[in-house]
Amino acid sequence: MDEECWKLAEGFVDRTYVQQARQAQQSRTKMIKTLLSQRKLPADGWDDAAIEAFVMSLSSMDSNNFEGNVGVGEREARIYSSLVASRHYFLGHGIGRSGDLNAVQPKAAGSSLLLALTNKFALDSLKIAGMTLVKDAAVVPLATGMTLSLCMQSFHQQRPTARFVIWPRIDQKTCLKAIATAGLVPIVIENSLEGDELRTNITELRQKIIELGPETIVCIASTTSCFAPRSPERVVDVAKICSEFTIPHLINNAYGVQCPSIMGEITSAMRKGRVDLIVQSTDKNYMVPVGGAVISTSNPELLESVSKLYPGRASMSPILDLFITLLSMGASGFRRLLKEREEYFQYTKERLLEVAQKHGERVLNTPNNPISMAMSVGNLCDGSDRDSTYLGSMLFQRNCSGCRIVSTRATNKVAGIQFEGYGAHTNSYPVPYLTVACAIGASKTEIDTFMGRLDKVLSEYVRKRHQSQARTTVIPSNPEA
Amino acid sequence: MDEECWKLAEGFVDRTYVQQARQAQQSRTKMIKTLLSQRKLPADGWDDAAIEAFVMSLSSMDSNNFEGNVGVGEREARIYSSLVASRHYFLGHGIGRSGDLNAVQPKAAGSSLLLALTNKFALDSLKIAGMTLVKDAAVVPLATGMTLSLCMQSFHQQRPTARFVIWPRIDQKTCLKAIATAGLVPIVIENSLEGDELRTNITELRQKIIELGPETIVCIASTTSCFAPRSPERVVDVAKICSEFTIPHLINNAYGVQCPSIMGEITSAMRKGRVDLIVQSTDKNYMVPVGGAVISTSNPELLESVSKLYPGRASMSPILDLFITLLSMGASGFRRLLKEREEYFQYTKERLLEVAQKHGERVLNTPNNPISMAMSVGNLCDGSDRDSTYLGSMLFQRNCSGCRIVSTRATNKVAGIQFEGYGAHTNSYPVPYLTVACAIGASKTEIDTFMGRLDKVLSEYVRKRHQSQARTTVIPSNPEA
Amino acid sequence: MDEECWKLAEGFVDRTYVQQARQAQQSRTKMIKTLLSQRKLPADGWDDAAIEAFVMSLSSMDSNNFEGNVGVGEREARIYSSLVASRHYFLGHGIGRSGDLNAVQPKAAGSSLLLALTNKFALDSLKIAGMTLVKDAAVVPLATGMTLSLCMQSFHQQRPTARFVIWPRIDQKTCLKAIATAGLVPIVIENSLEGDELRTNITELRQKIIELGPETIVCIASTTSCFAPRSPERVVDVAKICSEFTIPHLINNAYGVQCPSIMGEITSAMRKGRVDLIVQSTDKNYMVPVGGAVISTSNPELLESVSKLYPGRASMSPILDLFITLLSMGASGFRRLLKEREEYFQYTKERLLEVAQKHGERVLNTPNNPISMAMSVGNLCDGSDRDSTYLGSMLFQRNCSGCRIVSTRATNKVAGIQFEGYGAHTNSYPVPYLTVACAIGASKTEIDTFMGRLDKVLSEYVRKRHQSQARTTVIPSNPEA
Amino acid sequence: MDEECWKLAEGFVDRTYVQQARQAQQSRTKMIKTLLSQRKLPADGWDDAAIEAFVMSLSSMDSNNFEGNVGVGEREARIYSSLVASRHYFLGHGIGRSGDLNAVQPKAAGSSLLLALTNKFALDSLKIAGMTLVKDAAVVPLATGMTLSLCMQSFHQQRPTARFVIWPRIDQKTCLKAIATAGLVPIVIENSLEGDELRTNITELRQKIIELGPETIVCIASTTSCFAPRSPERVVDVAKICSEFTIPHLINNAYGVQCPSIMGEITSAMRKGRVDLIVQSTDKNYMVPVGGAVISTSNPELLESVSKLYPGRASMSPILDLFITLLSMGASGFRRLLKEREEYFQYTKERLLEVAQKHGERVLNTPNNPISMAMSVGNLCDGSDRDSTYLGSMLFQRNCSGCRIVSTRATNKVAGIQFEGYGAHTNSYPVPYLTVACAIGASKTEIDTFMGRLDKVLSEYVRKRHQSQARTTVIPSNPEA
Repeated sequence: MDEECWKLAEGFVDRTYVQQARQAQQSRTKMIKTLLSQRKLPADGWDDAAIEAFVMSLSSMDSNNFEGNVGVGEREARIYSSLVASRHYFLGHGIGRSGDLNAVQPKAAGSSLLLALTNKFALDSLKIAGMTLVKDAAVVPLATGMTLSLCMQSFHQQRPTARFVIWPRIDQKTCLKAIATAGLVPIVIENSLEGDELRTNITELRQKIIELGPETIVCIASTTSCFAPRSPERVVDVAKICSEFTIPHLINNAYGVQCPSIMGEITSAMRKGRVDLIVQSTDKNYMVPVGGAVISTSNPELLESVSKLYPGRASMSPILDLFITLLSMGASGFRRLLKEREEYFQYTKERLLEVAQKHGERVLNTPNNPISMAMSVGNLCDGSDRDSTYLGSMLFQRNCSGCRIVSTRATNKVAGIQFEGYGAHTNSYPVPYLTVACAIGASKTEIDTFMGRLDKVLSEYVRKRHQSQARTTVIPSNPEA
Repeated sequence: MDEECWKLAEGFVDRTYVQQARQAQQSRTKMIKTLLSQRKLPADGWDDAAIEAFVMSLSSMDSNNFEGNVGVGEREARIYSSLVASRHYFLGHGIGRSGDLNAVQPKAAGSSLLLALTNKFALDSLKIAGMTLVKDAAVVPLATGMTLSLCMQSFHQQRPTARFVIWPRIDQKTCLKAIATAGLVPIVIENSLEGDELRTNITELRQKIIELGPETIVCIASTTSCFAPRSPERVVDVAKICSEFTIPHLINNAYGVQCPSIMGEITSAMRKGRVDLIVQSTDKNYMVPVGGAVISTSNPELLESVSKLYPGRASMSPILDLFITLLSMGASGFRRLLKEREEYFQYTKERLLEVAQKHGERVLNTPNNPISMAMSVGNLCDGSDRDSTYLGSMLFQRNCSGCRIVSTRATNKVAGIQFEGYGAHTNSYPVPYLTVACAIGASKTEIDTFMGRLDKVLSEYVRKRHQSQARTTVIPSNPEA
Repeated sequence: MDEECWKLAEGFVDRTYVQQARQAQQSRTKMIKTLLSQRKLPADGWDDAAIEAFVMSLSSMDSNNFEGNVGVGEREARIYSSLVASRHYFLGHGIGRSGDLNAVQPKAAGSSLLLALTNKFALDSLKIAGMTLVKDAAVVPLATGMTLSLCMQSFHQQRPTARFVIWPRIDQKTCLKAIATAGLVPIVIENSLEGDELRTNITELRQKIIELGPETIVCIASTTSCFAPRSPERVVDVAKICSEFTIPHLINNAYGVQCPSIMGEITSAMRKGRVDLIVQSTDKNYMVPVGGAVISTSNPELLESVSKLYPGRASMSPILDLFITLLSMGASGFRRLLKEREEYFQYTKERLLEVAQKHGERVLNTPNNPISMAMSVGNLCDGSDRDSTYLGSMLFQRNCSGCRIVSTRATNKVAGIQFEGYGAHTNSYPVPYLTVACAIGASKTEIDTFMGRLDKVLSEYVRKRHQSQARTTVIPSNPEA
Repeated sequence: MDEECWKLAEGFVDRTYVQQARQAQQSRTKMIKTLLSQRKLPADGWDDAAIEAFVMSLSSMDSNNFEGNVGVGEREARIYSSLVASRHYFLGHGIGRSGDLNAVQPKAAGSSLLLALTNKFALDSLKIAGMTLVKDAAVVPLATGMTLSLCMQSFHQQRPTARFVIWPRIDQKTCLKAIATAGLVPIVIENSLEGDELRTNITELRQKIIELGPETIVCIASTTSCFAPRSPERVVDVAKICSEFTIPHLINNAYGVQCPSIMGEITSAMRKGRVDLIVQSTDKNYMVPVGGAVISTSNPELLESVSKLYPGRASMSPILDLFITLLSMGASGFRRLLKEREEYFQYTKERLLEVAQKHGERVLNTPNNPISMAMSVGNLCDGSDRDSTYLGSMLFQRNCSGCRIVSTRATNKVAGIQFEGYGAHTNSYPVPYLTVACAIGASKTEIDTFMGRLDKVLSEYVRKRHQSQARTTVIPSNPEA
């Protein structure tokens, strides 16, 4: 509504109230102006009404929503189903253009602006979370694995004759697959056991580089967020080595944004050594549906080369989810969530300790892992796959998801590589265990409920195990295995 | 977004595209300006994106959506559920204030403007449909019955000593109830049978007025939309009588907006006699959910007195539905729907004729009813209530809704009055029949499907009837009875 | 999905996971079963996914959503706009039938069931809130005023020769309008000033009944929720009088559900005297958009007669809002909101006291009003209308809504009656004041923000007043007046 | 609702209506059963109510929507914003697992089932459109470019020593970028000019294979949908060569699904030669927002290897869009759209001919291109880049999108390769031209409007050009260039 509209509105509604409404509109405009000029998260979250109005306003900037637009191209963002149109706020053009994910689309100025803002929000959120040296960030509509792969391909283009990716072991298939998808060869660095913790074996890593020759290496792929008893990568040490040997350093920081200690370590690594690109999942850190990742860097040119590598357009949906979510949180909301998670992590540890003690087990000592913890189950079960599968499925059937029981004896072949003790990040971890994470958005009630159920399941498991020693039982499969 | 915002947007998106987007925004603003200045339906329907953006913009004018608003009153439009907030586009204040449905709400300039515009749209739609002499219209969040009651109460306030409502018989409970709710006394005028049609008995009506004395009569309540074989009221004659005796004339035009002949008759009545208020249903004429009515008049003051009679606030929801729907149709879309209905009405009649002939029955000759038609079923069944109930439920169970089988022998007591031949609008209509209407929004496919099912059901009914003459059958109840 | 569907699903997804999903479905079914059998609010709120799935399931029970349904009636719940269809979850038939708001609609079993459940939820919520003797409740899609009017009309039908409504004064237009709309005559009982409080003058009330004769009185209309310094009606005393003189007792409990003390008083009145019908607003007590009311009673037959009085159908929308909201709150959520409000009310009073003291004013002593409080402003302004208007508009322009400044000198004619000191519930209240309410859903932050702004506005007002004593100022109108 | 629920419902709503509702529910269940057993598109489209109810039902099968679910993993599909949760129907887990896009997710049986069904729908739609020999299809949440890249990487894994992709020239950046992203080397085969048409130079293609050696070639990448005057690839000939030399054949059929002649040619190629994988865009063929592609094949194992190549999870959103859209269309709706497009294509050609003749130009003779057509503009402008940019921007500013003006003289470097005459698919096309496509979903009105605007713009352009020959003009940039 412009000046004239407001004037006309006074023909319907008293002037005073129109003025008041206009003032409110100006206040909204000011909120938008602040976003566009400060290029970061609003200090406080917006309410849903303001968010939807803004998204609709951006949507009106796309050609498919222009009044009287006619399209004679092959792609005109026509949307058949009104359900689909509504759920995307009539945004249809996706993002990217002709092979540059961040290129502005002529037909979609609104979508392009929305993407640009989301990138700024993501950047700001990383700084808030402690990654203070980051200079640029791009939100991509790909989950972590594919994004890691894209980053590696980008490094590969700079180092076309190299083919290895140095990869300190983390037993999570996606990371390894990402290397294979990029057409590269993983070099596994086994972790070293220090106390209960599995930590980066820097000595072996350095040795392997020298052995292969730094020029043959596409990048080192560190992993900062992981299940206990593996600890986050020693990224500072890895960064120093990368600097020393001039090797790109890619950090898989999948769900590390929520942990200040991890973000601090990465910042320290950026300061003291070499960190090229850092990849984080949107769903795991910002509570949106699966489908996006944030790539961040202190070197904007690197990010541009990744963005340019991407062929063609892509879905706008994960970007829009993050845009809405970060506007809704605001800086203060995001900070509050980070703070709560830290408190709940401590609380989870205390509660798990109680359960462990009651059942004659212990919480593994993993001081470096700020998000996941593990409790031994060696006295409860013999650590066979069968045991852990059974225990896991008992929990899953009681609506406890995300708890992994690790037998330490599993073997698995992933991307052509044979692993012993798969799932435990090492060939033979001394004791079977279960893992519990406290992720962003978890509530105290949830933790309490889980601990109650875990306690019951463990008791029940022991009882059943005694009974079943006399006969064969059908064991349901463990979905978390 | 203002000048400065657009400028800032150029920091994210190329200038050319920002300009294009801005032009599009201006085009939207111009659409809004046209609405506000012309105060009628847009020539062509708006697309959903434009509608939602406009509603969100109006919603931002309500105080509960002001940034930083704090409320210390008893009613601050706080909405608990985000599902509820979303479905109402964050509009929470309803309409009306302190006992005037059309009063502007200080806290809700957006809602007030939306209501004012909807009234103008409704007014325009009535003119388009042929009610050319209408001067004002108000959309109320009450269905037809309650609205009729409100109109009668308003007349009653002007004529406090009167207590009768002259009511040419129409066998539909709501109309009669409306009189009772208003605390008034209905005077039934029986219809006269002319050929197959039941028509207003003007002679008796006039006689009754003289008998009771015009000053005792609150109003005459005509009904223009009704099931065949009753025909629309002779509103021109009634209007002349109202003029002659200075009696208010209230027309229940529930679903008559969709019929040009009815709208023409009402216009003629307005020209030649007295018509005070006309009430039409929003769901039946505009394809929105049940819950609203349009009161129209050539005398704006009368409408104001009804609006002022209403105590307190009311739901915005039926208003919003009509607003969205009429914006979506536009004048051209509404005209097209009216035209299609007329074509389909003819088609329905032709198809019903075929079915009637096949089963040895006939379509009643009701040339004055432009929306409903009736087919005799006297040869098929004996016209007992039991028969008609059974036939009706067979159709309903085959997913045919809205077809009424009228036995002509039912008796019923409504609002304290005993009726013979209830459902047939007269004490003893010569033959049992079924009715079929062709309403706005019906499709040709629907008509074809119905005729196919009706044909089958009639055949099956005859077969079953022959079988059941030997034994007792359990007859399911007829939901349309 | 039935047995066979689940089996077929196993052809797509592993059996174990299908079983898990099926179990989850059963858990949902069990939640529904609990609702249907217990007929009250769920102990804990449902999440939005479960609510929407249930509403969609109910919606599928309405004929317009039957696969292959064809309609040949005049009202077939066709919905033109997909935006409108979506926002109503494809519910189109409204509620009520042929003049009974609670009658089951044959075409709309789902809507009918939804209404029946909502009535049960409302009933349960009243009991939770302390109205323990209530036996039945009906949610009507009419706001408080119209609902009060309907109740009065219902009493009038039982007592056709009576025409007065005894009405202890409350300066809120809607209540008085409701009497006029019902075609009845209000008899004003002035309040008595007891300390700072305005309380029901039971002596005068009794005298007036004797004077008019109990048989001429349609009902006594008490008001339990009101702005300080008026206190809630002495309903126990009024109920005793109603019992003594056999006069119906209607309680306007607009926003009293949120106050345990009010609910307790009403219960006490039901126990010790006569209370026929109690009307409460849905938006004010349950945080839904304006448009509904709950009528409650200990005499289900009375409710039925009101429901039967309503002519025709009505909007489903306010019912659906309450249904979603109460499912979302659950009993525990509703209890928590009630508890919080009480805490915040105390907090508001403390904060207001601080502001009052700072500006040389005082908080009026109104111990019986548990929702509204008042602060004198006699030293700040002279109590002229002009003054209060100006002060009010200053607050409104600073986004403080709901605060009323009462000059005590206003006169007003409402429904034909002339009032002195209008707005103050009495002819000449000793001091001008402002009112502040703490309603359900208010937050601590809101209260703090308000008090900060109030403090500033008062200071600014004094400053401006001193300046303006020398010259004329243009005063913006006060929207809360 | 199960048996018991229906029984309980009878306590609220009459038995007959509950039975009717139950029957309707069963009818819905039957619709689902048909989908699950027939594994193809429904014969007729579902209405939105049925679609939403089904999606909500699938959503309830995901663990994040289980009642009482607690999550102690790192990824629990918690969704922060209720706007985001709603728009995804509470689906949060995405698709894929541990590096297999089509793997069932234990936590998300509903999402997994939805994906499996969407794949079947897509497969069926391809068959309907004429790709009769196709055996399997996978919908991936990646747009065409990235999907082509993934397919090439999959071929590369089978042929690790090969590195070339034979690529008959098509001047669209994405295709070429896809090759680079896969880390492969494109070998450009220039088109041969046959009349006005640019067609595959089979001789040169064969020669190049022999020259490079078939074993060095990862695949041949054909393009079937393209802008005139390039015609769809001679896929039958290419397929024969692929068969002869045992080279994988990848078809970029981006928007070819809508053209029966293209689909027929591909089927013929599958019959007579070798076709490995065919990639089509979801947005261009099915009218959904950008973000998905369908990979189809007659060799299901190939598809599995692509699916397994993908590392990790991915967004569900493009899958859900296609699911909703195809359910909404049904087989009959999809067929109708295909048929309409063919009619409109002819109509577009006729109308373009008129415009061409009026302006002294001609429609290029491109009988093999069933979707795009071109009109010479050589007499109107001199074919400089500047000219075409100006003309293009005039059209874009008049809200005509998708019309490309090709100067034939542009040069461009894409993925490291230098192209002459870029945009025209050949080094020096004889005449500058503009292209017009008639894509699925275009309406007759749109075509008429476009032709009217084109006519005006050409006239205006000539006028301006004459004026500007005397002075320098500022030419806006052409967004389609």
